[in-house]
Amino acid sequence: MSERIAVIGLGLIGGSLARRLAGSHEVIGYDAAPATRDLARAAGLTVRDQLAEAVQDASVAFAAVPLPALSTVVCQALSAGAVVTDVGSVKSPLYVAVRAQGLGGRFVGGHPMAGTERSGFSASDPGLYDGAAWVLCLEPDTDLASWLRVARTVTGIGARVVPSTAADHDAAVARISHLPHLLAAALAAAAAEAGPLALTLAAGSFRDGTRVAATAPELPTSMCRANRLAVAAAAADTVRRLQVAQGDPGPLIFSGHHARLAWENRHAVPADVPIGDADALLDLGRRGGWIERVGADTLSVLVPV
Amino acid sequence: MSERIAVIGLGLIGGSLARRLAGSHEVIGYDAAPATRDLARAAGLTVRDQLAEAVQDASVAFAAVPLPALSTVVCQALSAGAVVTDVGSVKSPLYVAVRAQGLGGRFVGGHPMAGTERSGFSASDPGLYDGAAWVLCLEPDTDLASWLRVARTVTGIGARVVPSTAADHDAAVARISHLPHLLAAALAAAAAEAGPLALTLAAGSFRDGTRVAATAPELPTSMCRANRLAVAAAAADTVRRLQVAQGDPGPLIFSGHHARLAWENRHAVPADVPIGDADALLDLGRRGGWIERVGADTLSVLVPV
Repeated sequence: MSERIAVIGLGLIGGSLARRLAGSHEVIGYDAAPATRDLARAAGLTVRDQLAEAVQDASVAFAAVPLPALSTVVCQALSAGAVVTDVGSVKSPLYVAVRAQGLGGRFVGGHPMAGTERSGFSASDPGLYDGAAWVLCLEPDTDLASWLRVARTVTGIGARVVPSTAADHDAAVARISHLPHLLAAALAAAAAEAGPLALTLAAGSFRDGTRVAATAPELPTSMCRANRLAVAAAAADTVRRLQVAQGDPGPLIFSGHHARLAWENRHAVPADVPIGDADALLDLGRRGGWIERVGADTLSVLVPV
Repeated sequence: MSERIAVIGLGLIGGSLARRLAGSHEVIGYDAAPATRDLARAAGLTVRDQLAEAVQDASVAFAAVPLPALSTVVCQALSAGAVVTDVGSVKSPLYVAVRAQGLGGRFVGGHPMAGTERSGFSASDPGLYDGAAWVLCLEPDTDLASWLRVARTVTGIGARVVPSTAADHDAAVARISHLPHLLAAALAAAAAEAGPLALTLAAGSFRDGTRVAATAPELPTSMCRANRLAVAAAAADTVRRLQVAQGDPGPLIFSGHHARLAWENRHAVPADVPIGDADALLDLGRRGGWIERVGADTLSVLVPV
């Protein structure tokens, strides 16, 4: 394919994306940090020294910069005429910012559910998105052709496109992504306070339960702050569960066990969804389904049963 | 060595132990389930059909049965004359039961900090204890020669012996072992309640944060119930941290990050401790240290710095 794709921000997420896309597209990268640009060039990527140069003539631009810089970069790329998507972990505030600039239609909020506790271009991996869920938001003002354009690119690198509204996405990730960060931090802090004996006894359950606490803390802090209301609700829900468990831990442990097994053992069956029906796409996402391939007339999807 | 060691209970923990000890000792196994005895015999272990036969003439007996059966098995093995240790995850209630039978001195409460979310002899692994912390309780009524006897056997299979009182042990594991089970269950339950979209988006942080919820729920439930007061205190501590984080998640995330990194980056230096000084042993454990080798006159230990 000859279409040009811009990737703005070349850390773990953007770097992995640029390296994967470079196998099948013309990719132009940019990062605000000169050292990161050098690393990306050394890895064989085409990289510009200015954001404006990178997005010029791009048909699609991926904004993969930290949350605080995201709305500025997205609006700049939209103004250059591209279809713009992003990889930020909270979606509603970004839509507010983009709409305030009158730039709604060609923006497709995105969120790949992939990452590690490492960061930076040196941690990037072109295989990071293989089989990963990748939310693409479908809002009332979204241009469906732009959405499908991004969906085709994202399924093309092996990810599963999950259609969702920004609000549904933010509520869901509060529980499955942001809450894990809070609980990992609470667990690590509780063990540290318990002293050296406890730290010596800490083994597998502690190691796994605190793994994401090794993430550079600025990232989860900005995610949780940007999704403050949904995260506070998820934390309050956990507080209620723990308060009940203080009386008897049995019901919580059993319900958590059944939930984990149900998640491990989910199955999905293939189906086709006609292209161009936004309501059918949102219904698919709400049922936990995803798009595997964007065809000319239909979308090949999988739906959990 | 020709000394005879009995292993009562041949599930994941006891089966792994019996298989590891069988390389260097005469090991006699027993399990209440005939099918498990058959599996163990098929793996080459010597197994008796009665507990009394297994502990007869044993110098040390390891009780590796579920918590509800533990005090009965421990008292039965003590009555047969052996030094008895166990692998249960809560220690204080067991001491109460053993002392009520007037059987204090030769009992050495133990707890290997190893395990997986699987269970049963078929999941056993002779390498399970390599480098694992293994608490051996040292109480005012503990016979020190019995304690050293168990410590020699446990260090001999590659584990790190951590001396502790039962009370200190129970408080520590409430935070680094029982609390992780509660938090994993709360996270899994919260995601299940959030619905199919959330379950489709659940990725690495959810997978790791809920891994121990895959454990057969009877085990963590009996651990948490047996350690009820310390677990309730650990849960209450987490509730307080989450309530603060509902206002601003930043401080919790940063303190958890520093705690996890400090745990990852701990260093320990070698030292020697004279054999036969119980206070020095308990001080070692409180400082997070452990015994690597039991020599004739000294203990080779490592102490975190």
